[in-house]
Amino acid sequence: MKTQPSARWLKLTVTYDGAHFAGWQIQPTLRTVQAELEAAWQRVTSETVSTTASGRTDAGVHAVGQVVGLRTESLLSPNRLQMAMNAHLPDDMAINAIEPAQRGFHATHDALRKTYRYQIQAGNRRPVARRDQVWHVRKSLDIVPMQQAALLLCGRRDFACFESSGSDRDSTIRSVVSCDVVRRDDSSHDHGRIDIEVTGDGFLYNMVRTIAGTLVEVGRGVRSVDWVSEVVASRDRKRAGQTAPAHGLVLLAVAYD
Amino acid sequence: MKTQPSARWLKLTVTYDGAHFAGWQIQPTLRTVQAELEAAWQRVTSETVSTTASGRTDAGVHAVGQVVGLRTESLLSPNRLQMAMNAHLPDDMAINAIEPAQRGFHATHDALRKTYRYQIQAGNRRPVARRDQVWHVRKSLDIVPMQQAALLLCGRRDFACFESSGSDRDSTIRSVVSCDVVRRDDSSHDHGRIDIEVTGDGFLYNMVRTIAGTLVEVGRGVRSVDWVSEVVASRDRKRAGQTAPAHGLVLLAVAYD
Repeated sequence: MKTQPSARWLKLTVTYDGAHFAGWQIQPTLRTVQAELEAAWQRVTSETVSTTASGRTDAGVHAVGQVVGLRTESLLSPNRLQMAMNAHLPDDMAINAIEPAQRGFHATHDALRKTYRYQIQAGNRRPVARRDQVWHVRKSLDIVPMQQAALLLCGRRDFACFESSGSDRDSTIRSVVSCDVVRRDDSSHDHGRIDIEVTGDGFLYNMVRTIAGTLVEVGRGVRSVDWVSEVVASRDRKRAGQTAPAHGLVLLAVAYD
Repeated sequence: MKTQPSARWLKLTVTYDGAHFAGWQIQPTLRTVQAELEAAWQRVTSETVSTTASGRTDAGVHAVGQVVGLRTESLLSPNRLQMAMNAHLPDDMAINAIEPAQRGFHATHDALRKTYRYQIQAGNRRPVARRDQVWHVRKSLDIVPMQQAALLLCGRRDFACFESSGSDRDSTIRSVVSCDVVRRDDSSHDHGRIDIEVTGDGFLYNMVRTIAGTLVEVGRGVRSVDWVSEVVASRDRKRAGQTAPAHGLVLLAVAYD
């Protein structure tokens, strides 16, 4: 396709509550973030665009800083586009920023690092207000061994043990830049909100959710810190913990050059 | 009614997400917290009970620590009752505690103090994940004059200026023990989450929501701190700010003897 002189690329930072979306990617008959975004763009600019995202989030997964790229010929300023789009988007999603991007910007291919947060509520107390945003683990969790095990995941490694089947990626080697386990509230020692924050250069399918399921085994005392090293070394998905539920996962931020 | 020897009174601490309830009080054909609670109690104990609450919360209002009283002849322990009830309650409400209460305990009449939190998100950024839990004020708010005005509300005063019409209370004098305006996140100076926490011996109808609407006028710079003194002195509801929306209000805790 010949690029018109007025064509330019934009980078959108998008937030959404994943509870009522069948994930990011357009699918026939299902409500998806991409479909709502492209429909709002059409209403605002009369332009049909095809968006790229830093990654597809699954049904139920949330985003604070999903990054979306698109090519447009609209002459509206980024600020005007953002205001108009937010007026047209449903109330469970919003655009936090629109910035110019370099020519040919592709949100998937150009992403350098991503940060996810996995949100847990431990203990008997049911997460009522945040029930669509945290995984409720009805046990007490000791975060000290979880933190020790999280450190073992940092670095460039083969993470095949954390990849759900059905993926078609060539390599299962990824770099995890940081993996932190933090208590989010001042509730009692073993209960309350615990977040796992992971930054990496890329993630295998369900990798963060399987890391969460694995660290919870350690926090419950069912498994040792050393077991996590053995799981990684085994490269065997069957040895890791369960895939934690989608609704505890939040895509926090994506870094580009 | 003659009290059976086995009758006892219990105090339940109840949390709920008010978004999908038509408030606390039982109403024909509407989904209410009281109706769900009494229906679950019936399923668990086969007993028909009539509950009292510290106060009726309106449609959309949330609770972290609503207190409910009831008289029961069930022989189940408070702990067993709590577990069984939580298994039967819908996922937007839960019981955080059940404790024995003194004979004749009445959650409304025996309440000594209540604490409410009014949750605001200021600025252009839309509250996507918490859209049912915060009032989105699309302006920047300066919390320093809000804090100064909040201090003027503390003490025993006639709060007729903050009472919505339609109330039938004898007196409009109440004691506000504390009123704090706090920033809840590390977002930029004038934006982000701001909570107003108010503790008092009782509140007039819509009083906390009208305090929130009034303090927001001060935070926006539309009105001065001194104006709040004049509003209180006037005893005139028409002079105060708007009644802030129900969905930003949370009943945090209720204190008893």
